[in-house]
Amino acid sequence: MGAAALGALPWALLLLLGPLLPGQGLQANITRVSEENTGGITAAPPATAQEVHPLNKQRHNHSTDGHSKPRKAFPVLGIDYSHVRIPFEISLWILLACLMKMGFHVMSSVSKVVPESCLLIVVGLLVGGLIKAVGEKPPILKSDIFFLFLLPPIILDAGYFLPLRQFTENLGTILIFAVVGTLWNAFFLGGLMYAVCQIGGSGLNHIGLLANLLFGSIISAVDPVAVLAVFEEIHINELLHILVFGESLLNDAVTVVLYHLFEEFAYFEQVTIIDIILGFLSFFAVSLGGVFVGVIYGLIAAFTSRFTSNIRVIEPLFVFLYSYMAYLSAELFHLSGIMALIASGVVMRPYVEANISHKSHTTIKYFLKMWSSVSETLIFIFLGVSTVAGQHYWNWTFVISTLLFCLIARVLGVLVLTWFINKFRIVKLTPKDQFIIAYGGLRGAIAFSLCYLLDYEHFNMRDMFLTAIITVIFFTVFVQGMTI
Amino acid sequence: MGAAALGALPWALLLLLGPLLPGQGLQANITRVSEENTGGITAAPPATAQEVHPLNKQRHNHSTDGHSKPRKAFPVLGIDYSHVRIPFEISLWILLACLMKMGFHVMSSVSKVVPESCLLIVVGLLVGGLIKAVGEKPPILKSDIFFLFLLPPIILDAGYFLPLRQFTENLGTILIFAVVGTLWNAFFLGGLMYAVCQIGGSGLNHIGLLANLLFGSIISAVDPVAVLAVFEEIHINELLHILVFGESLLNDAVTVVLYHLFEEFAYFEQVTIIDIILGFLSFFAVSLGGVFVGVIYGLIAAFTSRFTSNIRVIEPLFVFLYSYMAYLSAELFHLSGIMALIASGVVMRPYVEANISHKSHTTIKYFLKMWSSVSETLIFIFLGVSTVAGQHYWNWTFVISTLLFCLIARVLGVLVLTWFINKFRIVKLTPKDQFIIAYGGLRGAIAFSLCYLLDYEHFNMRDMFLTAIITVIFFTVFVQGMTI
Repeated sequence: MGAAALGALPWALLLLLGPLLPGQGLQANITRVSEENTGGITAAPPATAQEVHPLNKQRHNHSTDGHSKPRKAFPVLGIDYSHVRIPFEISLWILLACLMKMGFHVMSSVSKVVPESCLLIVVGLLVGGLIKAVGEKPPILKSDIFFLFLLPPIILDAGYFLPLRQFTENLGTILIFAVVGTLWNAFFLGGLMYAVCQIGGSGLNHIGLLANLLFGSIISAVDPVAVLAVFEEIHINELLHILVFGESLLNDAVTVVLYHLFEEFAYFEQVTIIDIILGFLSFFAVSLGGVFVGVIYGLIAAFTSRFTSNIRVIEPLFVFLYSYMAYLSAELFHLSGIMALIASGVVMRPYVEANISHKSHTTIKYFLKMWSSVSETLIFIFLGVSTVAGQHYWNWTFVISTLLFCLIARVLGVLVLTWFINKFRIVKLTPKDQFIIAYGGLRGAIAFSLCYLLDYEHFNMRDMFLTAIITVIFFTVFVQGMTI
Repeated sequence: MGAAALGALPWALLLLLGPLLPGQGLQANITRVSEENTGGITAAPPATAQEVHPLNKQRHNHSTDGHSKPRKAFPVLGIDYSHVRIPFEISLWILLACLMKMGFHVMSSVSKVVPESCLLIVVGLLVGGLIKAVGEKPPILKSDIFFLFLLPPIILDAGYFLPLRQFTENLGTILIFAVVGTLWNAFFLGGLMYAVCQIGGSGLNHIGLLANLLFGSIISAVDPVAVLAVFEEIHINELLHILVFGESLLNDAVTVVLYHLFEEFAYFEQVTIIDIILGFLSFFAVSLGGVFVGVIYGLIAAFTSRFTSNIRVIEPLFVFLYSYMAYLSAELFHLSGIMALIASGVVMRPYVEANISHKSHTTIKYFLKMWSSVSETLIFIFLGVSTVAGQHYWNWTFVISTLLFCLIARVLGVLVLTWFINKFRIVKLTPKDQFIIAYGGLRGAIAFSLCYLLDYEHFNMRDMFLTAIITVIFFTVFVQGMTI
């Protein structure tokens, strides 16, 4: 209970400060308030002490409005919020995330039944509603912020501490699920949704095949953040964990390529067979290119760590920096940033661990765990807030068929693919395993952010897509996450 | 040698990418290049394969300029630098800082003679020159970035690990140096500089008393960053270290008040005695207010750490967050952020350490050390870069008298104050101690940033002030730092 009361504190502070923040351009316009205004040499009579209430700029301005060049005494206390606004608000959001996470662990009775990710989305919904209630516009999870700042720590944490032996042993299975499975999902869903849109009376006839395939490619990928959040809580066996989680990492290249492919094609007048071949080629460019960028940075990091024996204190920073730059460099060329991050983590880890001090290793480990955990928390909270903040366009046909076909595509895909995979595996996947793989195909913030990135000018059905995607995310995280 | 070669790498990369960055608004205008352009159905004839050179947007644009709506194939490789620009460039700067720091430790023969801070300034000068040589504008150390992002980690590291016993035992001495000493320096220097400006033929008659006092208050404060950097390398005895370093921390309140006081007074037509009394009051408001804010956040942090036993992973974040918010909250009200940070660190530390896990403690310690060390490195590099980048106005009279009076004021102040202090101290300060205290009064980036904050419209002598301040900083860091 104490923690919950504590959680309200920063918000009370923010609400208290709310009236003081008229916007961006306050910088030069420092509010000048004094404890007592005195008669100087100027012509204007001084404002009386009662009129000048500290922290009340409105009244202060009013009291001097009538005079030219009001005489002000030296301000004993000034306020300048615009100066500290950005870091202060970011700190507040992170603090909220930490306090919520802490609160759920204190009230363990609730968090045993409901997964944390669900609780966090609910918190986001409440906070968004609260911000809306006081007349402000709640922030939407910006795609740039998500891809540049929130996603990398989670992927780096996962990639750096990837159980490499299990991962490589099951690489074939993982790749088939990630590549063939995602392709299947995208085209099956996109095609069926196109068929639904063509049905007369649905009012969706204007959504063409390419837009539907784009939608399918956005929503078909299993989300690593959601999978990590739910699977870490339910302590599933390691094989299934690495299968589903590995799939969620490696399907990134497929998603990136399909997304850019269909987005570009939507601008074309006609798609030629050459375009399709180029798209096919770009799948290899995106995935292998991403891995290549990651390996390069991983090797540089490994090489650098040989020279840090005299300056242990900055060793962790090299790991973070090189990994992050691998991710950014890959993103720069529209390669798979996730695969670059995983590759750099996997390549650098054995060398770096042999070279750096034990304390540095602890710092890397705990800092990564801390940062990824906070990122994850922020992502789920912002999913909730964005749901309240965003423009929604609800279409029953579209949403229900999306949800239905998502489930069918996933189940069919897993059944057919495991039937094929089991011919080659020594340890066969049991029907129970197949059920969990199919059921664990959670969708998350990556889909939301990718859809949000779409240009509204060209994709005027974006709001309906977003609504459907949020519904699917909520369904998979709440219903599947809670019952798994 | 290997490290030096490695250091050149990110810069080579940046220079390579240079021509690709035409500015901010590239986002939507993704460069589309294809391996082979194909004859589609469109009317425009395709560009030949030779003309479309990847990474060469200029030529590509040229080749299609003459045609309406050029037909483009699906881009196998795209480039979108604006999307990743900000985090990428920040990472590059931090990487440069880390590599330089590492390089100096590898080439230990050089760093034994010259303090690291000097080497870093030289690196900054070189990098700035290089950026200028390729025709770009080198970045200037923005005051906002300095005060909001670079300074807090250094102060928090210092405040959290402050040797409390020694600090409190010598608090009286430290306070006298910090308050009386800084006031003496500011007024002595400001007054004498005003006298110099009044001498006929100096061409400085337009600089009034208030502007000179403002200049004196900016340049008179000993800088904690410079003191930490130099004193940590020379391993001086603990008493002298805490005396000079403590002074550099506690003089912040005096500097903040004097700075705002003289800055405000410069806008006034006439300064009344009441204004001066208010200024005197605001010294207590700024210092005690800062401590109060820090204590509040420190207590909240201590209280919060009681509930983290189930979620060890985010414990370090609470320490960073609450301290940072203490700093920002103090800055918000123009209180002393440095004193808030020190106070919050001192208050929370015993409670937090008793509550959190050993691993979290290690993470906090090493992360703070890492971050403060990188911040310090960046500050010195940027001081060098800013020197190359800034507008300079060199006036021999002004610069030489500033340097001279700075030294005289410091020596006189220390001599008189220690004579007074020694009457009350059990462990007297020897003449050798006095020499080191006087000689250790290094100036640094805080003075530079405060001066840079001045409004050029109102203080048209700002460039001359900046030039003089940079000269004093270089003199104290190079000459005093190298010979101490």
